Amino acid sequence: MWFGSVGEETIRRLTWMKDVFAPVMKKAIAMTGGIPVWSILAQGIQMGDECHNRHAASTNLFLKIIAENLFRLDIPRDTALDVYKFISGNSHFHLNITMTACKLAMDAAHGIEDSTIVTAMSRNGTDFGVRVSGLGDTWFTAPSPYLLDALYNPGYAAKDGAPDIGDSSIIETMGLGGFAIAASPSMAAFAGGGVAESISITRKMRLITTLKNPKFGIPALDFEGTPTGIDLRKVVETGILPSINSAVVHKSSGAGQIGAGIVKAPFECFMKAVKAYGDRYDLAA
Amino acid sequence: MWFGSVGEETIRRLTWMKDVFAPVMKKAIAMTGGIPVWSILAQGIQMGDECHNRHAASTNLFLKIIAENLFRLDIPRDTALDVYKFISGNSHFHLNITMTACKLAMDAAHGIEDSTIVTAMSRNGTDFGVRVSGLGDTWFTAPSPYLLDALYNPGYAAKDGAPDIGDSSIIETMGLGGFAIAASPSMAAFAGGGVAESISITRKMRLITTLKNPKFGIPALDFEGTPTGIDLRKVVETGILPSINSAVVHKSSGAGQIGAGIVKAPFECFMKAVKAYGDRYDLAA
Repeated sequence: MWFGSVGEETIRRLTWMKDVFAPVMKKAIAMTGGIPVWSILAQGIQMGDECHNRHAASTNLFLKIIAENLFRLDIPRDTALDVYKFISGNSHFHLNITMTACKLAMDAAHGIEDSTIVTAMSRNGTDFGVRVSGLGDTWFTAPSPYLLDALYNPGYAAKDGAPDIGDSSIIETMGLGGFAIAASPSMAAFAGGGVAESISITRKMRLITTLKNPKFGIPALDFEGTPTGIDLRKVVETGILPSINSAVVHKSSGAGQIGAGIVKAPFECFMKAVKAYGDRYDLAA
Repeated sequence: MWFGSVGEETIRRLTWMKDVFAPVMKKAIAMTGGIPVWSILAQGIQMGDECHNRHAASTNLFLKIIAENLFRLDIPRDTALDVYKFISGNSHFHLNITMTACKLAMDAAHGIEDSTIVTAMSRNGTDFGVRVSGLGDTWFTAPSPYLLDALYNPGYAAKDGAPDIGDSSIIETMGLGGFAIAASPSMAAFAGGGVAESISITRKMRLITTLKNPKFGIPALDFEGTPTGIDLRKVVETGILPSINSAVVHKSSGAGQIGAGIVKAPFECFMKAVKAYGDRYDLAA
């Protein structure tokens, strides 16, 4: 079998995830009666996570729930330890859960007649696309941007990176990540201007969203909620672009992630969507 | 045997702590090769703990280290689960460790000739006392203050509380707790004026301390260190009193803690100490 640039270690780990990790997690989660994902994220926001590029607190909170059941499950001690270490050794673990939760929430907001709320933003390394609640399943696309001001790992620079890629911007679509960056001082280095710049980004995002989500109170803003629900009209009116906390992947090698930083959703996507909205709802130009 | 107002449940738990919890923890900690207590506290400061009245993050970080060894130890599964739950069920667990670490650090700073640094603040429910590095083992005391503006549990008020009591103010002596309150927005309710008031308290503590501890960077202050090392002279000169995050204990019943709030160390302790310093070092009045 040929795996391209994927190493044996990667294959071994994927197999272990399928054969060992997944079945154990399935049982451990079933024993909880359900993971309170939104509460974990709300606590994470209180503990310095913006819930995209930082998940240190939410991963610990999730692990705290799971670990208890790892002691209860009738599995070998070594297996329990391996599963525990797989989560405890990766402070980004909860990212997987956050993305899924945000996708489910935004899908629930999709397909509402007249609505101008953006229900998905995604990128595939070539195109950046947005979907809008009242505009069906059309993706309004533009070329995916490069992360010019990102922080790169030693030996890498902007020229090595692929254009922005991945589904994780569903997190910003739900008002977390870049929209909640004021909650995460340790992300201030990405903002480039310290904590004040982080707060300024979150404040700007209020100008293109419909509400402050009271579930996610940002400590540095006296627990004011995260700006949530991107309104297509407000983006086009103000020219303020959704701010996404992202990672940079190498454009050709198997190096994987080579940096992280902030990227803005392309204005063209929103321009195309607002025009489609005019056509769809028969508004005069 | 008569335990006064101490219930059977309390005795049962203390016995369990001695016979089960302590031996297991001793083994689990020995396997770690040492707990990085200051690093845990430094991370806690990044995650909303001020490390006195809030230890939610640091408890999780400590638990994360211990839990791994609970899987490794050759003990019954139920015992491991009980030990795990005892820690995971109490978000104040790390308070015990914090107090001990701060006491050791401040004892190391004690007994330095000429030094005007306060190395202990403590209260026994009757007296409040401070010790000073260059003034030997004398405690400079004044009546312990009441917590007038504390938040009380339902059914209790200031009149029910004992004067301030406990050794935990060693935490403020080390520059955490009340001195680091700007790190803990969830403590803002105690400060009475939101996050801005919390930041203001930490800023005031700078005026009576000798350095900003670079180990504990406060996110809301762009990672400026916690004000550390109370200087007797600065307290007397400015009249600014050390701000302590404290709890209120019922004055007579076995109800235990009935509230929490902020208390100021009495000025008289510092006045007595500064006079003793003048005598000890033969300074002109």
